[in-house]
Amino acid sequence: MQRIAILGAGAMGTALTTPLSQNGHEVRLWGTELDVALLAELRAGRPHPRLGVPVVPSVQLYDPENLAQALADATVVVLAITSDGIISILRRAIPYLRPGNPLMMVTKGFGYDADQHVQLIPPLLYNELPSELKETSPIVAVGGPCKANEIAAGWPTATVYGSNDAHAVAACQRIFQTSAYRIQTTDDVIGLEVAAALKNAYAITLGICNGLELAQEHPWHDLKAASFPQAVKEMVQFAQAIGGRSETIYGLPGVGDLEVTALSGRNRVLGERLGRGETITDALEAMRKAEQTVEGVAAARFAVEYVEYLAQQGKLTLADFPLLSALNKMLAGDMNLIELLSEAVLPALAPHTSNE
Amino acid sequence: MQRIAILGAGAMGTALTTPLSQNGHEVRLWGTELDVALLAELRAGRPHPRLGVPVVPSVQLYDPENLAQALADATVVVLAITSDGIISILRRAIPYLRPGNPLMMVTKGFGYDADQHVQLIPPLLYNELPSELKETSPIVAVGGPCKANEIAAGWPTATVYGSNDAHAVAACQRIFQTSAYRIQTTDDVIGLEVAAALKNAYAITLGICNGLELAQEHPWHDLKAASFPQAVKEMVQFAQAIGGRSETIYGLPGVGDLEVTALSGRNRVLGERLGRGETITDALEAMRKAEQTVEGVAAARFAVEYVEYLAQQGKLTLADFPLLSALNKMLAGDMNLIELLSEAVLPALAPHTSNE
Repeated sequence: MQRIAILGAGAMGTALTTPLSQNGHEVRLWGTELDVALLAELRAGRPHPRLGVPVVPSVQLYDPENLAQALADATVVVLAITSDGIISILRRAIPYLRPGNPLMMVTKGFGYDADQHVQLIPPLLYNELPSELKETSPIVAVGGPCKANEIAAGWPTATVYGSNDAHAVAACQRIFQTSAYRIQTTDDVIGLEVAAALKNAYAITLGICNGLELAQEHPWHDLKAASFPQAVKEMVQFAQAIGGRSETIYGLPGVGDLEVTALSGRNRVLGERLGRGETITDALEAMRKAEQTVEGVAAARFAVEYVEYLAQQGKLTLADFPLLSALNKMLAGDMNLIELLSEAVLPALAPHTSNE
Repeated sequence: MQRIAILGAGAMGTALTTPLSQNGHEVRLWGTELDVALLAELRAGRPHPRLGVPVVPSVQLYDPENLAQALADATVVVLAITSDGIISILRRAIPYLRPGNPLMMVTKGFGYDADQHVQLIPPLLYNELPSELKETSPIVAVGGPCKANEIAAGWPTATVYGSNDAHAVAACQRIFQTSAYRIQTTDDVIGLEVAAALKNAYAITLGICNGLELAQEHPWHDLKAASFPQAVKEMVQFAQAIGGRSETIYGLPGVGDLEVTALSGRNRVLGERLGRGETITDALEAMRKAEQTVEGVAAARFAVEYVEYLAQQGKLTLADFPLLSALNKMLAGDMNLIELLSEAVLPALAPHTSNE
């Protein structure tokens, strides 16, 4: 039996209490200052507002001020914080982390390093660790096509854990796996994280086709289906340019996660709103009011900045990412959705030759 | 301007009159004995029953008995016949085919060759041709994520034309392409055809997850999303085993066509019926009564037979195709849908080691 501390009582952090509790581990769920209302619901035995189910009574709930107690003697720590909050929470947690234990990371996306270069989350986390933890505490990234509510409910789910430390990732696999929550392992952390971050951006473009369908009352399936492999192609290029592998993108972390992200969720909803004809300003404002952060918006902007940085090194240019470029134009207010999407994902017209 | 004869007035054959007419070609649409009612609707200026739109008046309609006239001096012939009828129609057409002109093939699936081995459609067609046509009339296969109704309506669509004859495929591309109907070309006919045939089978498995959702009123998105890359993986293995390329499966013909086929259509509907709890017998009977052929059923059975044939040559075994195997069990009446799908597409459980 392990003692697991999950930092962040949002949807995914709370959902992971299901497989862990089923396996008989001691599970501690710590909430940030933003999670106080969520913790109150759970403590009252009511369903988590974003999951629809309560946690089992054996899950120990910790308030924001009790971070030290939540982390005391934890053998695995799970960071389930949004990408804009993860570094500050990690800094608060570091004094209580025991050397030698895995640090699992559910957070997806990008951030800036000390040189103001865009980076994926794992290197940013790693840079924060004191040297003792750098040497002994392997980072295990969590990706793959998982909806938090389905994990919480115990429905069949495939997830992917990635780490450079084969022993750590195998240990986490055995701690978390259940007959419903199945875990593939990989050493391609870069490919896993590229997919996890970028799929949110590309899911917006797929959602746009759903929105067009809702607005115009006829399907845009061909355009959506042409967009899907273009998104996959661009994720492969991005991953390969920074040391990830194409096979990761073609598997559960890329194709699978893009599929599930386009089936439901906030990124799809933003796309639907745009496709129905809302301006980006109105759509984002409506989602902000509903307290719905759309991670794909930041991911799209970070990704463009990352590609520009890679272009300076002669690796790739934005011209290699027509769909990402089209998305950023739409996020900047360009309402020519159909034209932008079509030119980004449909094959080019062949020139007519002079002898015809 | 070209003179194009389309054989088969079903959905896709009729849909292709849209880009061809827009490009100013002479378009002839010939209907089989099964298409008589469809032709009558079109001749009356009414919408095609399966497309929802009429053909433009310049499209010339030919009755079953006027095959010779339909083919007279045609510079391109399009075969848009179901897979179980294509050989007999081709035999009727051969006396009227002019040497040197492309033979385009919209039909997807498998059939038996003279030795009772399963084959893709292009080699079966080729074997039927007299030697003069074999040498001069290149076969051009048509694949990619296209719904006939969207092509007919002129909505943005990406298709893929494949041929071993680069000149012929480029010529067809220029004849058919419009700003909405865009054509990618490839020389990987095998990969294109494997994807076109197998996507119908795998779309049934994705439809099952939609059916489970309808029956149980909660999403099965994680299971569906885990199934998608497994389907892609199995299509890649199949294509590579017989000389096709993985890149074809990862692009529009594979990932794209699987996506669009799972969004709507008969294969998805069959899956939904199974997922909702209907027996395979009842589901197929209901669809037969509605005159809805589900191509994925035959494709799944042919694919298993093809894999068994490859296994005899030591190339692959059915164990390499867990999702295809699970589908065939479900098509044979096994109602344990969730268990079969889960075991086929979720990562295996890691064994617990003795020192834990």
